[in-house]
Amino acid sequence: MSLEEKTIRSQPIFDGKVIRVQVDEVELPNGKKAIRELVKHSGAVSIMAITNENKLVLVKQFRKPLEKTILEIPAGKLEPGEHPLDCARRELKEETGYSAQRLDPVVSFYTSPGFADEYLYLYEATGLTAGEEQPDQDEFVERIELTLDEAFNCVASGEICDAKTIAALYIWQTRVLKGL
Amino acid sequence: MSLEEKTIRSQPIFDGKVIRVQVDEVELPNGKKAIRELVKHSGAVSIMAITNENKLVLVKQFRKPLEKTILEIPAGKLEPGEHPLDCARRELKEETGYSAQRLDPVVSFYTSPGFADEYLYLYEATGLTAGEEQPDQDEFVERIELTLDEAFNCVASGEICDAKTIAALYIWQTRVLKGL
Repeated sequence: MSLEEKTIRSQPIFDGKVIRVQVDEVELPNGKKAIRELVKHSGAVSIMAITNENKLVLVKQFRKPLEKTILEIPAGKLEPGEHPLDCARRELKEETGYSAQRLDPVVSFYTSPGFADEYLYLYEATGLTAGEEQPDQDEFVERIELTLDEAFNCVASGEICDAKTIAALYIWQTRVLKGL
Repeated sequence: MSLEEKTIRSQPIFDGKVIRVQVDEVELPNGKKAIRELVKHSGAVSIMAITNENKLVLVKQFRKPLEKTILEIPAGKLEPGEHPLDCARRELKEETGYSAQRLDPVVSFYTSPGFADEYLYLYEATGLTAGEEQPDQDEFVERIELTLDEAFNCVASGEICDAKTIAALYIWQTRVLKGL
């Protein structure tokens, strides 16, 4: 059985700088109709940057949707036409000042497939060289570097509380456990 | 330095069944102004259910925002006032037919903190007993059970491609590597 939902009608709701919102009427596999509320996003990258001291580079940042300051791996939106690798290099430099000798793809995923199409490319950055941060004019972040154990303590305390950072921590931990 | 962004003005854009959208004008830490596009969501649960044969229970589901069918761990939105544990039990039963002897909290996270406040509670379900699925009337899913290796092959092929499922897989892998 095909699980597909065919679009009958699509109503644009909002066209912003970061997201577009639309409401689609769909035909379900059983022929009935349903409504789907959809958020369109240009995609993003995030970077699991490991320093030469074997610490993970994080940024402290106020997140308006949550009304709180949390600790995340560096991340940012793809510019139109930008390759995710170039975006990763740019965001790492802007938010942390670091340049990376190596940037390797780790895994990619949709962050909220139930209502949004945001797709996030996770890279690993190694061979880091410190430099000057170059934050966007509306972006305020503080760099923090943590060992694996310290980072997991921040998960327990709730300071690290987002999907990409927690995924990156467990990926890092599996590598450590495998002796990689 | 406080990284907080104070709300100057908040404009409601859309009030749907699943999401609310608003645009906030904020005052940045340097006194300048910026615009934030925000998606409000009631939160969700997902379930890392491990069968007695040591396989992970997944569901195949068409996701309208992505216009494709993907393979995910069971998940669903919190009903108003519903405890996440009750929601996990309900969604597991609805989507897979399984009842669980144990449902233990694993970790919780924001899925897309840059633009949305969706918070997702991940539970581990064990001691599973098979039963009849009870899908919502607008929900069409197929149950699939995979070993850890098979699941990672689905990550490589792109069939598993969402944050919560990939996080769950690495969490499961760290437990296997630790001999838990």
